[in-house]
Amino acid sequence: MKEKKPIPHWKFKLHEVIYEADTPAGKFFDIAILIVIIISVVLVMMESISSLLYKYAWQFYIAEWIITGIFTIEYIVRIIAINKPKRYIFSFYGIVDLLSTLPSYIGFIFGGTNLLFAIRALRLLRIFRVLKITRYIGESRKLMLALRNSKAKILVFLFAVLIICIIAGTLMHLVEGKASGFDNIPLSIYWCIVTLTTVGFGDIAPVTPLGRLIASVIMITGYGIIAVPTGIVSAEFSKTTDKPITNTQVCPNCNEARHLDHSEFCHNCGYKLNE
Amino acid sequence: MKEKKPIPHWKFKLHEVIYEADTPAGKFFDIAILIVIIISVVLVMMESISSLLYKYAWQFYIAEWIITGIFTIEYIVRIIAINKPKRYIFSFYGIVDLLSTLPSYIGFIFGGTNLLFAIRALRLLRIFRVLKITRYIGESRKLMLALRNSKAKILVFLFAVLIICIIAGTLMHLVEGKASGFDNIPLSIYWCIVTLTTVGFGDIAPVTPLGRLIASVIMITGYGIIAVPTGIVSAEFSKTTDKPITNTQVCPNCNEARHLDHSEFCHNCGYKLNE
Amino acid sequence: MKEKKPIPHWKFKLHEVIYEADTPAGKFFDIAILIVIIISVVLVMMESISSLLYKYAWQFYIAEWIITGIFTIEYIVRIIAINKPKRYIFSFYGIVDLLSTLPSYIGFIFGGTNLLFAIRALRLLRIFRVLKITRYIGESRKLMLALRNSKAKILVFLFAVLIICIIAGTLMHLVEGKASGFDNIPLSIYWCIVTLTTVGFGDIAPVTPLGRLIASVIMITGYGIIAVPTGIVSAEFSKTTDKPITNTQVCPNCNEARHLDHSEFCHNCGYKLNE
Amino acid sequence: MKEKKPIPHWKFKLHEVIYEADTPAGKFFDIAILIVIIISVVLVMMESISSLLYKYAWQFYIAEWIITGIFTIEYIVRIIAINKPKRYIFSFYGIVDLLSTLPSYIGFIFGGTNLLFAIRALRLLRIFRVLKITRYIGESRKLMLALRNSKAKILVFLFAVLIICIIAGTLMHLVEGKASGFDNIPLSIYWCIVTLTTVGFGDIAPVTPLGRLIASVIMITGYGIIAVPTGIVSAEFSKTTDKPITNTQVCPNCNEARHLDHSEFCHNCGYKLNE
Repeated sequence: MKEKKPIPHWKFKLHEVIYEADTPAGKFFDIAILIVIIISVVLVMMESISSLLYKYAWQFYIAEWIITGIFTIEYIVRIIAINKPKRYIFSFYGIVDLLSTLPSYIGFIFGGTNLLFAIRALRLLRIFRVLKITRYIGESRKLMLALRNSKAKILVFLFAVLIICIIAGTLMHLVEGKASGFDNIPLSIYWCIVTLTTVGFGDIAPVTPLGRLIASVIMITGYGIIAVPTGIVSAEFSKTTDKPITNTQVCPNCNEARHLDHSEFCHNCGYKLNE
Repeated sequence: MKEKKPIPHWKFKLHEVIYEADTPAGKFFDIAILIVIIISVVLVMMESISSLLYKYAWQFYIAEWIITGIFTIEYIVRIIAINKPKRYIFSFYGIVDLLSTLPSYIGFIFGGTNLLFAIRALRLLRIFRVLKITRYIGESRKLMLALRNSKAKILVFLFAVLIICIIAGTLMHLVEGKASGFDNIPLSIYWCIVTLTTVGFGDIAPVTPLGRLIASVIMITGYGIIAVPTGIVSAEFSKTTDKPITNTQVCPNCNEARHLDHSEFCHNCGYKLNE
Repeated sequence: MKEKKPIPHWKFKLHEVIYEADTPAGKFFDIAILIVIIISVVLVMMESISSLLYKYAWQFYIAEWIITGIFTIEYIVRIIAINKPKRYIFSFYGIVDLLSTLPSYIGFIFGGTNLLFAIRALRLLRIFRVLKITRYIGESRKLMLALRNSKAKILVFLFAVLIICIIAGTLMHLVEGKASGFDNIPLSIYWCIVTLTTVGFGDIAPVTPLGRLIASVIMITGYGIIAVPTGIVSAEFSKTTDKPITNTQVCPNCNEARHLDHSEFCHNCGYKLNE
Repeated sequence: MKEKKPIPHWKFKLHEVIYEADTPAGKFFDIAILIVIIISVVLVMMESISSLLYKYAWQFYIAEWIITGIFTIEYIVRIIAINKPKRYIFSFYGIVDLLSTLPSYIGFIFGGTNLLFAIRALRLLRIFRVLKITRYIGESRKLMLALRNSKAKILVFLFAVLIICIIAGTLMHLVEGKASGFDNIPLSIYWCIVTLTTVGFGDIAPVTPLGRLIASVIMITGYGIIAVPTGIVSAEFSKTTDKPITNTQVCPNCNEARHLDHSEFCHNCGYKLNE
């Protein structure tokens, strides 16, 4: 810990503002950068609409460079503010931050519009940073916890769903064939996923009676097994939220273990629980 | 409290009838106004069907004015009946009530049919008043409570869903392009929402193998994460219904109210709960 | 009870066979009549397929009369077997049973094919009787119980959903108009129900950006609030299934109340629970 | 147990490698065969794409025979390795394994391409073996347990759903008729399943106002009753995860194994559980 002391005060302050959100300045920086990100996201969206792009071409061009400028400055300041820059540069957000500034410069040097836009859309990844705002909402931690705990079970479930789709897709390809649009097995599997997840685009739909029968079975299966991930997560949430009711105290007198969180005395024998 | 006394008795009675539902007259008024609202809603619906509008033009005209008359009288009576009219006028229902009478008069003075109809449809907002009937159903309070408790978690979830849709929508726009109908990013995001929520209209559907692969991932994601809001609300409902764990005993010594169902002694002060 | 004695033995026996399912004969009758019902249902289905109807016209005719005959005999026997025939005749199943035999005779006397078929399809209602078979599956009682307990909450929920659809449907009619197929308000409400329930046929779909934005909100709402009925029923099931774990025994020595169903001794103090 | 001894050591070793997964060699064999299965599945998928099939005809042919060879060897080794070959041959996996090698040989002898491909797709059933990998994920056992426990309830539910679809399908056929695509009752029932499960392809959609009203009721029903399977499975999962209520203690006196977490004495015999 003593080696870390020689960090200059301004660097320490800067780090506090840029990487933390406990001080007013830190919160302000966080929110300011979020607003710029949202503006940049909206810009990318609007640029993708041809009619708007033709009409406001140079306005987009200027806005593009202003945002690239801000992001470049932010990137440099982030590198300066941290003691071990590599940690930031090679982190997920470090790479995203770089990818959201680089394309504009590359595009400026090499030109090219179609591919350029595609790369520039990488900037959208920055929107993940908006999720950071959820730090302010305590609930999101519980959400993440419940999801993390049920991750393994949900993956097993999705794996089983995929295998069902492969089998059913092959079956549909054999039954319906090319006439109804089930051209090949991968396409039929795609259709099965569309159907099992109850999305149902309708661009491909079975036509033969047997195909419709199988489709019915797939749909009812999909309708029934959606219960599985739901059940997993529900149980996880119940566990998480139920816990606060009882704590881990055990009465030293009667060993009764289920006590409300703020219990002073054992509800079973009246013995004082903790001094 | 003493300043409120000078309210004349008839005003007090009128208030009881119009704003409360404890007396038979109050209940009757509530139900009568609900029936008029439902009739007015049905009329607006029917008026929107061209064939009916042409056929029964003047019948609609008369019904229109009868309902406008009833609503106008109700609005005036409501203002008279309350001691502080401003409270009602600027409340949500006050504004809705005004908006549901005004358009007919404006339309009468200035004419104009298309816009008029649009404004008149505002009257439909009155249907929210029908929800008041749920006062009579005790269950709806529990429902609202469970929803309010899980509001924060559900908002975080919907926020995350939106960000997934923005990223996935941009990806689909780049992969599929204009040929398949993914004309611009906002449209692709719209498609993503249609797909992730498992609605799946099918007006836009991916055509390229890569686009279909991404679509499959989006669909399976949507199918899997529907578990999250469901889990949240389920846990909330379980908590509400689990409450019987703590009973309604109150410690005669320290007034602590949350006791496990089988508590013999107060867990807060050790006092014996029931002889 | 004594007035009921003069029931002749054969009537008593017949009642046991036809209305109960405890004796082997009763079970056999139940299953035999179920098989006839399923055959009649399959026949009605097949008759609706034009190509089959033309090909096997007279076979259908004969099968029709055989089944009508069996149902007529069953109906008469049911009236004879019961002591108070009115109870059966005016019960739900009594009316369904009558309606499933009458049309054939009416059709025979008056002729007419189109309407006749429509009335004959009433016979399908008999399929509800198949649900009786669930008597043999103990689980279905728990299912019905959980559903009955959560009925009030689910109705409040569906009521709220309907009001959302009315408001949103009117909005969509005003925003999209006739050009995109939102011809009138009832049709727009229908579209809203299709969208909110995540069915999404795609026969009508919004075209304008604003319409698509509103549609997105409707879809996300539908995706989010499906959690409500699910949460209600989940909580209900949890309550029902959790109960068996602990019984209502209370230790006479230490008053501990949470005991496993088959406990012989109190787990808290070792005292013998029930003699 | 003594009769089993004369199994030769090499056979015992081979059995351990092929049928078990506890030894490194066993794990390696398991994973190797899984990879071959996945390759064969991918091959069948690719072969179904006409453009690929024409381009790489002979490569597919060779790959086909290599995989058939590997599967044939595996099948023979499996028969050799087990002491009672019949147990394997007539097991589900035994039949699948045979079906995944046989078609290639039959096709070689008799020729024929279309039917051949159909039979060869049977090889896809081998993918079920991939599910074996879930053995390594402990969670999947809990999943299977919860599903098995709720199987009866879910079947009753799906049975009720089917009956609703039959009634509603017949109704839709009568109301909409052939003009809107509801050609016959089985087709209408198919449409009902599509609608009730919220898939909604849109290839068939109601056109008449009454048909749309009934469709709305079906959709709202489907949206509401999805809560039922979800509730069933959720409750099951809650039970499974709640189990920590009973711990793993076993009474040293009477061997009773289900004890509440905080039990001091065996609830079955009153013996003190842990000092």
